[in-house]
Amino acid sequence: MEARPSTVAGATAQADPDSVPGLLARGRSLCTPPLRAAVARLAPPMDAVAAYHFGWTDRLGNPTAGDGGKAVRPALALLSAEAAGAPAAAGVPGGVAVELVHNFSLLHDDLMDGDETRRHRATAWTVFGPAQAILVGDALATLATEVLLDAGQAHGTTPTDAARAVRLLTTATRKLIDGQARDLSFERRDAVTVEECLEMEGGKTGALLAAAAAIGAVLAGADDRTADALERYGHHLGLAFQAVDDLLGIWGATEVTGKPHWGDLRQRKKSLPVAAALAEGGAASRRLAELLADPQGRGEESEEVLAGRAALIEQAGGRAWTQDEARRQHKTALAALDEVPMADAVREHFVALAEFVVVRER
Amino acid sequence: MEARPSTVAGATAQADPDSVPGLLARGRSLCTPPLRAAVARLAPPMDAVAAYHFGWTDRLGNPTAGDGGKAVRPALALLSAEAAGAPAAAGVPGGVAVELVHNFSLLHDDLMDGDETRRHRATAWTVFGPAQAILVGDALATLATEVLLDAGQAHGTTPTDAARAVRLLTTATRKLIDGQARDLSFERRDAVTVEECLEMEGGKTGALLAAAAAIGAVLAGADDRTADALERYGHHLGLAFQAVDDLLGIWGATEVTGKPHWGDLRQRKKSLPVAAALAEGGAASRRLAELLADPQGRGEESEEVLAGRAALIEQAGGRAWTQDEARRQHKTALAALDEVPMADAVREHFVALAEFVVVRER
Repeated sequence: MEARPSTVAGATAQADPDSVPGLLARGRSLCTPPLRAAVARLAPPMDAVAAYHFGWTDRLGNPTAGDGGKAVRPALALLSAEAAGAPAAAGVPGGVAVELVHNFSLLHDDLMDGDETRRHRATAWTVFGPAQAILVGDALATLATEVLLDAGQAHGTTPTDAARAVRLLTTATRKLIDGQARDLSFERRDAVTVEECLEMEGGKTGALLAAAAAIGAVLAGADDRTADALERYGHHLGLAFQAVDDLLGIWGATEVTGKPHWGDLRQRKKSLPVAAALAEGGAASRRLAELLADPQGRGEESEEVLAGRAALIEQAGGRAWTQDEARRQHKTALAALDEVPMADAVREHFVALAEFVVVRER
Repeated sequence: MEARPSTVAGATAQADPDSVPGLLARGRSLCTPPLRAAVARLAPPMDAVAAYHFGWTDRLGNPTAGDGGKAVRPALALLSAEAAGAPAAAGVPGGVAVELVHNFSLLHDDLMDGDETRRHRATAWTVFGPAQAILVGDALATLATEVLLDAGQAHGTTPTDAARAVRLLTTATRKLIDGQARDLSFERRDAVTVEECLEMEGGKTGALLAAAAAIGAVLAGADDRTADALERYGHHLGLAFQAVDDLLGIWGATEVTGKPHWGDLRQRKKSLPVAAALAEGGAASRRLAELLADPQGRGEESEEVLAGRAALIEQAGGRAWTQDEARRQHKTALAALDEVPMADAVREHFVALAEFVVVRER
């Protein structure tokens, strides 16, 4: 992929890309132990299903070396507490709760979408059956609320701020569910508008990153204005991330994405490049619309046919528009950050994390 | 069914059975409008799926005369507020939230259990597909938390008490999920102990009735001792209800239960009468154990064969034990009620509602 949004003009802080591995490692090392402790409270066999899903064990229950993904959300939650002048540790219950909600949605979405692999492993519903995937997803969402309420009793957070954090995360969860509902409804349609696509992606990806970016500050007692600006940073970062994800879904190499080549095109996924190409209205755009409306050969297209569609999307400007959109959303995210007074080091870390999320071919 | 627990010795209040229809009607009339308003906030098509599930519309979306069941939980939530000396209306957000969680669990359980009918109608997953049942269940659980947090902003409830109510309901939801996990695990076993069965039923039925009985008082600012006693009333009432339900599942007439004759025996459900009969250890008990362990003819037993099993359960004392257990749980529920100082009229209503729940052939 060629899209490589550089540090955006207007941001007051420079990114230090070297700081990102440390930020992610800190998020993991502070949040994984309480995350595991929360999951261990589930009744058997839900604890084992969850441990497999998080990548902590294989399907037989043996420990694995897996660490459960990049853990961007916990890293954001800890920075968020620091943005409010608190120690990073004040954001830990937020990082844990956001990871629990994220994994609740993965368990349910994989089942609803019929996806059989995630992070190069068999999805939980294919290993333990649909009922366990439903049940464990439900349990993780419930645990998330409990973890936040516990913060109001044990972590130096006031009960009022714990309740504000529950509100923040619950609203994000509902947006997440709304986004998935929109995504499912797209499957029955030949085309969606760019606006519809952005709204869906704002729910599925933006809402939880927004909550992650604000939840540490809320737990630390930040005012609503600070929380709101941090939420907007996370929301636009999520949209930038998703724009890049949509580009990788078409033009990304399998070894980078862990997904099949041309996978999004094979599934006729209504992603941003497709929506933008359909909106353009020229010859390539019209030809693409005809092909997508044709039920013939659905899901059985050859590599060659899919490569032809990718070329049409590019000719109709869908690729370039989405690259621009990623830059625009990245820039808007950084502008929201500028509204919050915080230590320079913390701001630099937010900027670095944003660049890491958006520029993923690195 | 012969089981008819009468008003239990030791209770300080007499039941007035005539008051029950009024209590249920009050619960419905105060809680249904805000319940519908909450559901209407869901993004399409989730709002329509939920409206069908609640019985407000048919599968085409046309309004029906259905009122969504007996609504015992809302009635309890309103009484609960009155137990704390507040007006019934203070319990409304609690009644709405408990109904949302109850229906979240019905949507998911029907799908997990493969049940195709509920309240004489096709279950939502059979009409709208599994994905919508998962998604709408998730959305209702999320709405429940939002409704309670809103109570802290609009209904004269303090934010602290709203957060206490969220904690109460979240803990109940996790017990509900644990109960369903146990129930699913029973399906792979030939027998369960009485203790395991009670623990499962305490989760699946007791937890949410416990929350309903306490949530109004919590929203009205009652102390923890009051809330705890009301929770115990609801928990034991739930176990009494479930014991009666288990008896009806075997010996109840289809026209009363709305379920197929001998249905629980056909499914080899591990209910209390079966667990108690297996624990007895005599000749009939041993013969029953042999039959239940035999994979032959599973799910294809004739009416005659199932009638023979029912007779074995009765000979081994499973029916009488469960009738006694319903009386014991009913009595324990009323004893918990005696710990809470409240107006005589309110106590009489709690007692009447308990008798209504336990004595269901009326």
